[in-house]
Amino acid sequence: MPHPLDPVFHPRSIAVVGASAREGARATGFLGALLELEYQKDHALYVVNPRATEVRGVKSYPSVLDCPDPVDHVISLIPRDGAQQLLRQCIQKGVRSLHFFTAGFSESGDPEMTRIEQEMVAEARAAGMRMLGPNCMGMYIPSEQVSWMLNVPKEPGNVFALSQSGVNAGAIISDLAERGVRFSKVVSFGNGADIAAPELFEYAAADPETSVVVAYIESVRDGRRLFEALRRCAAVKPTVILKGGVTGAGARAALSHTASLAGSLEVFDALCRQVGALRVETLEQLHDVTVALTTGLRHATGRRAILFGIGGGFSVLSADAIAREGLDLPELPEPVQEAMAVHLPIAGNSVVNPIDATFPAGPRTLVPEKVLPIVGTAENYDVLLASVDPPRAPNEPPPTGPTPPPIPEDERPREILEVLTEVQTKSGRPVVAVSRSREPARFSHFAARAHREDIAAFPSIARAAATVGQLATWQESRAGLPDLLR
Amino acid sequence: MPHPLDPVFHPRSIAVVGASAREGARATGFLGALLELEYQKDHALYVVNPRATEVRGVKSYPSVLDCPDPVDHVISLIPRDGAQQLLRQCIQKGVRSLHFFTAGFSESGDPEMTRIEQEMVAEARAAGMRMLGPNCMGMYIPSEQVSWMLNVPKEPGNVFALSQSGVNAGAIISDLAERGVRFSKVVSFGNGADIAAPELFEYAAADPETSVVVAYIESVRDGRRLFEALRRCAAVKPTVILKGGVTGAGARAALSHTASLAGSLEVFDALCRQVGALRVETLEQLHDVTVALTTGLRHATGRRAILFGIGGGFSVLSADAIAREGLDLPELPEPVQEAMAVHLPIAGNSVVNPIDATFPAGPRTLVPEKVLPIVGTAENYDVLLASVDPPRAPNEPPPTGPTPPPIPEDERPREILEVLTEVQTKSGRPVVAVSRSREPARFSHFAARAHREDIAAFPSIARAAATVGQLATWQESRAGLPDLLR
Repeated sequence: MPHPLDPVFHPRSIAVVGASAREGARATGFLGALLELEYQKDHALYVVNPRATEVRGVKSYPSVLDCPDPVDHVISLIPRDGAQQLLRQCIQKGVRSLHFFTAGFSESGDPEMTRIEQEMVAEARAAGMRMLGPNCMGMYIPSEQVSWMLNVPKEPGNVFALSQSGVNAGAIISDLAERGVRFSKVVSFGNGADIAAPELFEYAAADPETSVVVAYIESVRDGRRLFEALRRCAAVKPTVILKGGVTGAGARAALSHTASLAGSLEVFDALCRQVGALRVETLEQLHDVTVALTTGLRHATGRRAILFGIGGGFSVLSADAIAREGLDLPELPEPVQEAMAVHLPIAGNSVVNPIDATFPAGPRTLVPEKVLPIVGTAENYDVLLASVDPPRAPNEPPPTGPTPPPIPEDERPREILEVLTEVQTKSGRPVVAVSRSREPARFSHFAARAHREDIAAFPSIARAAATVGQLATWQESRAGLPDLLR
Repeated sequence: MPHPLDPVFHPRSIAVVGASAREGARATGFLGALLELEYQKDHALYVVNPRATEVRGVKSYPSVLDCPDPVDHVISLIPRDGAQQLLRQCIQKGVRSLHFFTAGFSESGDPEMTRIEQEMVAEARAAGMRMLGPNCMGMYIPSEQVSWMLNVPKEPGNVFALSQSGVNAGAIISDLAERGVRFSKVVSFGNGADIAAPELFEYAAADPETSVVVAYIESVRDGRRLFEALRRCAAVKPTVILKGGVTGAGARAALSHTASLAGSLEVFDALCRQVGALRVETLEQLHDVTVALTTGLRHATGRRAILFGIGGGFSVLSADAIAREGLDLPELPEPVQEAMAVHLPIAGNSVVNPIDATFPAGPRTLVPEKVLPIVGTAENYDVLLASVDPPRAPNEPPPTGPTPPPIPEDERPREILEVLTEVQTKSGRPVVAVSRSREPARFSHFAARAHREDIAAFPSIARAAATVGQLATWQESRAGLPDLLR
């Protein structure tokens, strides 16, 4: 049986109401994003604007009722005053779902606007039409060529994201896309007057295209329903939740943002633990955990970490940072240490853990290639954190300074990513790449390539360690629930 | 009376022993760094290398004894085996200080090498010569044109940094220099066999060129002496300490790094609180706190923060992040809210706190200029965090996409930094710039310019808030000690 949201997520025709070339970047953003994903190639696309005959090559009609064929989905960019009339026209036209980017309803704090919002939902529901928003960005569904943002990946993936905030939904898409993560569906639902978090969790739980669910939530309107939906979802798929408005000041901001009564952190935290959801505290953590859950790192089973490749005071601080995140740094077995030592012959290197391989006597670039596979033979660890110098991104200028001498043919190293993939595969234990580059372009180029090879990449040791710790804590908290990480 | 370290920090002549064009980047790094700061212009500079007559234009001599004039300071890059002979030659030559980059002594864990290290110190002391290291990078003193690193600022500043680790000393210099901080002296002292932390704290306390002291410490050899030196220093100057090896794994790494027995975090933390030093946990925090102590942010007197310029879900999460760091976000007085509201007319904006000024109806660029001075008139806050879009760095390409329409002359905004400076000056309360750019080049270009105007800049709201919280906690812990932040 199809889910009630299935038609919403598979629109065969879309009308963008209020799009105009002159209304600035935001309005053209919606139309432009659909054009960028070539929605119009396999679907019908209309503009509704009485003052235009076409916008960016898309034919424009005076009203939704004038569109020649059925319209499945409508995106409303018009001012609030015209919203109710548009709603009625959409019902008359037989539109299946109406998305209000239009704002100024319950989130304004005006009781009259809250009443109107509720009336509109009732009217839509009575007619069998679904409403998205108001005050939201809508849907990014790459498999359907639907998007509200420019510069998003065209190819679909297995992550379902739902977000009460459009800004945060956009950050989730762009930051994770840069790191190689791809999405089945992303839904920004704003005030959530009709379509809201519980129904979206239920959909995601059953969606065959979704393996991981991530959510940004501000309000809990119907706690019982959210609890049930979250429980169902977290039982079958890793479900990551970021709750906004967990402090008094944050809750006040949430109220004026999406008309949300935020509720206390304690209640929400208990709810997550009870259903087995993974609660994070920042967007950065949400991104990091999602990278972990969509790479080989999801198979991490414990807290024993090896740190490879860091030397000097960095290794001391890195070891402190790793321990602070609740991980252990076990000493490697004697035979493994001895096998490594052959390749790390100079004073100052360490074969214990952290493994310091920063100043080898030979051609330094060969050391990871020789030592990492040896590390992988150790039996007493759960995850290997490898600090690596990622190769340059294609459009990155070469470093200034003298050109290094050419490396002889037989001493030329393989690419580091190839070595990491081999160790992860052969050892059966996750390898994590921690980039030493501070340039975001270089990091994301490397991270995206690593993600394709099932390797999780992080921009710092502290963030990699925190993520491993969070996975372990979550896994421990799910005692009695199905193991979703095998 | 001059401090015993004064001659060490003011060398009139330097010999780099073991420098050669073929010894690779590290060796030429030391000589190259001196040349880059033009040390040779006002001082005598020699190379000692029996296999060269000159290196990079600097005349080379077979031994220190062959240098024609007195040599104040010697930098040793030679292998460990020749160290004792070099030491004796230096004594014979009347050298005042000998810096061993040379490693492989007590940090190797070999008791014989520990014995030799101690013997060398005794020999040097008996002859009145000071020893720096072994196993360290030495000194960066811009006022004396002395450096071990390339690409460091030529102009001096008021921050004294001491570090047991050369890698961390380098990170302190380059990361803080990028953000506009300048240094009186930076000393990397490695094993600290002779010159070590206590004496450096004593020097920094009395140094008229130093206003702020920051330290990376791994070991505490003589707890009583360190306590006394730190107490003296922290009584008169803000003193920031990062302790490495505070966990079991970190301590193990420290042992092989600088032969340090690291000691427990609890003991060290109590020590810092007792003397009034500001303990940080990461290099990033050390940098952030140093930026705060060298800008108007050092005058922050409490935890009441205003957040300006953030909208949507970001404002909810930012408010949460700020509250999580122990700060309050007070509501602004009614008259201030009303005065702001005139310039923030659209639905969705908030004048409460956080102040959301992201989608103004008018030319959005003018809003900060009009609203920030009004915020500054509020009396119920301690620090104003302004989220800003920093101007592009000079070598940064313009963004892709359509060119925005030209702004009419009378609606063209002043530069944001000018507005922030004016509000900080007029209100008498610190303004903090939080960059919305994710590009490090753009952030550091802006941060360095802001630092010159006495404005602290941070790359994220969470880091800005954490820094304000740390300053407040530190200030509270100093009850009974002199107020160093007025």
